[in-house]
Amino acid sequence: MAAIDDVIKYTENNRDKFEEELFELLRFPSISSDPDSTEEMNRCAEWLKKNFESFGLSAEILPTQGWPVVVAETAKKSDRPTVLVYGHYDVQPVDPLELWNSPPFEPRRAENGNVYARGATDDKGQAFTHVKAAEAWMKAGVEPPVNLVFLIEGEEEIGSPNLEDFIREHRERFLADAVLISDTSQFGRDLPALCYALRGITYMEFIVTGAKEDLHSGMFGGIAPNPAHVVARILADMKDPNGTIQIPGFYDGVKAPEDWELEEYEKLPWDFEELAKQLGISKLSGEREYPVPVRKWCRPTLDINGVYGGFAGKGAKTVIPSKAGAKVSMRLVPGQDAERIANLFEDFVRERIPEEYQVELINYQNSPATVIPVEHPAMQAGKEAFAKGFGKEPLLTREGASIPVVSFFVDEMKCPTVLLGFGLPDDNLHAPNEKFLLEDFHRGIKTSAHFLDAFARIEK
Amino acid sequence: MAAIDDVIKYTENNRDKFEEELFELLRFPSISSDPDSTEEMNRCAEWLKKNFESFGLSAEILPTQGWPVVVAETAKKSDRPTVLVYGHYDVQPVDPLELWNSPPFEPRRAENGNVYARGATDDKGQAFTHVKAAEAWMKAGVEPPVNLVFLIEGEEEIGSPNLEDFIREHRERFLADAVLISDTSQFGRDLPALCYALRGITYMEFIVTGAKEDLHSGMFGGIAPNPAHVVARILADMKDPNGTIQIPGFYDGVKAPEDWELEEYEKLPWDFEELAKQLGISKLSGEREYPVPVRKWCRPTLDINGVYGGFAGKGAKTVIPSKAGAKVSMRLVPGQDAERIANLFEDFVRERIPEEYQVELINYQNSPATVIPVEHPAMQAGKEAFAKGFGKEPLLTREGASIPVVSFFVDEMKCPTVLLGFGLPDDNLHAPNEKFLLEDFHRGIKTSAHFLDAFARIEK
Repeated sequence: MAAIDDVIKYTENNRDKFEEELFELLRFPSISSDPDSTEEMNRCAEWLKKNFESFGLSAEILPTQGWPVVVAETAKKSDRPTVLVYGHYDVQPVDPLELWNSPPFEPRRAENGNVYARGATDDKGQAFTHVKAAEAWMKAGVEPPVNLVFLIEGEEEIGSPNLEDFIREHRERFLADAVLISDTSQFGRDLPALCYALRGITYMEFIVTGAKEDLHSGMFGGIAPNPAHVVARILADMKDPNGTIQIPGFYDGVKAPEDWELEEYEKLPWDFEELAKQLGISKLSGEREYPVPVRKWCRPTLDINGVYGGFAGKGAKTVIPSKAGAKVSMRLVPGQDAERIANLFEDFVRERIPEEYQVELINYQNSPATVIPVEHPAMQAGKEAFAKGFGKEPLLTREGASIPVVSFFVDEMKCPTVLLGFGLPDDNLHAPNEKFLLEDFHRGIKTSAHFLDAFARIEK
Repeated sequence: MAAIDDVIKYTENNRDKFEEELFELLRFPSISSDPDSTEEMNRCAEWLKKNFESFGLSAEILPTQGWPVVVAETAKKSDRPTVLVYGHYDVQPVDPLELWNSPPFEPRRAENGNVYARGATDDKGQAFTHVKAAEAWMKAGVEPPVNLVFLIEGEEEIGSPNLEDFIREHRERFLADAVLISDTSQFGRDLPALCYALRGITYMEFIVTGAKEDLHSGMFGGIAPNPAHVVARILADMKDPNGTIQIPGFYDGVKAPEDWELEEYEKLPWDFEELAKQLGISKLSGEREYPVPVRKWCRPTLDINGVYGGFAGKGAKTVIPSKAGAKVSMRLVPGQDAERIANLFEDFVRERIPEEYQVELINYQNSPATVIPVEHPAMQAGKEAFAKGFGKEPLLTREGASIPVVSFFVDEMKCPTVLLGFGLPDDNLHAPNEKFLLEDFHRGIKTSAHFLDAFARIEK
């Protein structure tokens, strides 16, 4: 009998124990945005450390400028690859509390097979699958085929302000052959998905100033500069009604999805009519000449995230604003350079500022798109793991959003990152009644266990 | 000796008395926007009533839904025209108090000849010139050549919410052959101006809705509607970079200024470079093909008074807004119908809403432009009054703003309104250190006295 069989048997024999521990973990109100949660955050980190130690990993709690990080690892052996598991033990706030059907920090097992609690899926439940898979390997009487390093942070829900510096500081410790993250979701129920690409982002703001103070539109209308008109014209120039971006050079180098990808997307069980209905619109928007999945995952975008100027309160005020501005983010795809896009954007804006106006530009974020080649051993291992853990080949998907920690691992740490999403799209992340299907918790544990087995084999 | 000579002599003999009374009036902190000022508002109204009675007018304090109105009048005689004087006894708040060089409700006579106090020019000082002119006529031992009605309200600084209803309710009492208002200013020092035209206004808001909730720009960018782009495109379409409005039919019927007007404007001592400097801009904006005074007074305008949508705080947030909108006001000139402009605006917006969006329109205000023909007896009387009271022919000017009470008198009460501005453009209205040149207070009294004399003569 292969070692993996003993491991899987261990996971089956310990379902109750795993669930009990998950529930314990979910009881900590580890809300990272709450400055008064120091005791709960520390207790939660301490609990995790002890849990790691309970099955033989060496674990410690390391400080950052903010909330501490829990690091656990197996003894490193040079004859096997290293897998880094990233997760987070902090959770979102629970407001509005009155919309919860049960207290958010008293995990409730429902008849529908879900556990309801804040953090059930994001990310305690999903991260814990890997912890329990590690336990299964350690306790099944067989040796894990990979070196394991866990990095469980406490600041993901507040934007991971200290994570990158922390990893850089301990760089040697976190070098790995693959990073494993479960902080996304399946495509739908019983539809596990392997996400192999994320879009990047360039985020800009421009602020146009006319007169140095707000003016009366009666006394000065007709002779005073009105920066709101300049902002509107620039924004209108940027994107045509079809959604095609008009910034010269913006699409240079954009890599179109390959044929196999388009074929793959065709197979996915989309329901765009239902999606439009959920959004409350008559149809989806965007570039007509591209299929919806391509618009969503493979095409770069430009969206106004905010526009402002003058009086926005109730009623009428006859003011000519002194300042107006807009926040604009562009989602980038493979082949686009984020800094170059920022420069093109800036040129586009500056060229359109009439002489009696001033402009200021801010570049908040530049992060490239990420693609993990599907042939990569880590991705192959991911596919096999899902096939065995869920009994289904995973769908191959992209994601339209950017996950900064993934960009960091891929671009700076040069380490392929595998996103094994075990949650469901309707798990109420960041909302009341967050949930996690317990069956998916267990399938996640098995999938993780299989991943380690498969990756060690394929990587060789 | 003509009666007017006795009247003028009375004003000269009573300069000290008039100033003392003005200072008394300025001591009331009659801030209409302060709900706690009931006692001060009532005391101020009571003081005015007594002042009117002191020289023989019958006066009363009439309630409204808000602050009371002081009404005073001479006994009505059918052989002479009636002049209605409109003014207001309420004042603006005084914040920021620390910027005042002396307490705002302790009138201070400075060496430069000014009195400094809240309300000095807006409008206690200016309105009181007409009260003292009436006194001079009543006390000089000659009979006033007109019937006089004073309407001094207490809500101008909060938008006169009850004034129109109040006048309608007492309609017969306020029917007049001319309305006299001093709540504007001279063109500059020693440059009295007679304003014969105001622009009208149509004020609109449109709110565009895409998805029913804000969406994540990574997950939905490329397929979700973004109403901020629709708003930007509509606003950009409305006005070209030269300032020419693109709403079809907008300029239909617009009356160009006549040659004599253009000649008159040429003569005015403008300093547009200085104005641009004060505004902090390199040059004035607007329609290049028109002289600046025409842009400011005679051309209709369209200005964004507010634009909003999505995230306007500090930093970056990757949201696709559910709603975005804009508040837009259009200043109208003679020949334009305000309701028609509102309809054209609405059509223009609705035609540009793509099918997956919703739009809501609000029409806050429709008020036509006002022109008092300069040949009208009341205007002729105004010219003569300035010539005698200030020793200077007044400049003939327009005003770019709209004064709702003037539109009301002209359009609804069918009564020509004469704006005798005695203040100066730098009198710090609505700002710290409001002032009024005492010499202009006295010249205003004389001008008002002459107006009654001239109007009675010319009207016959």
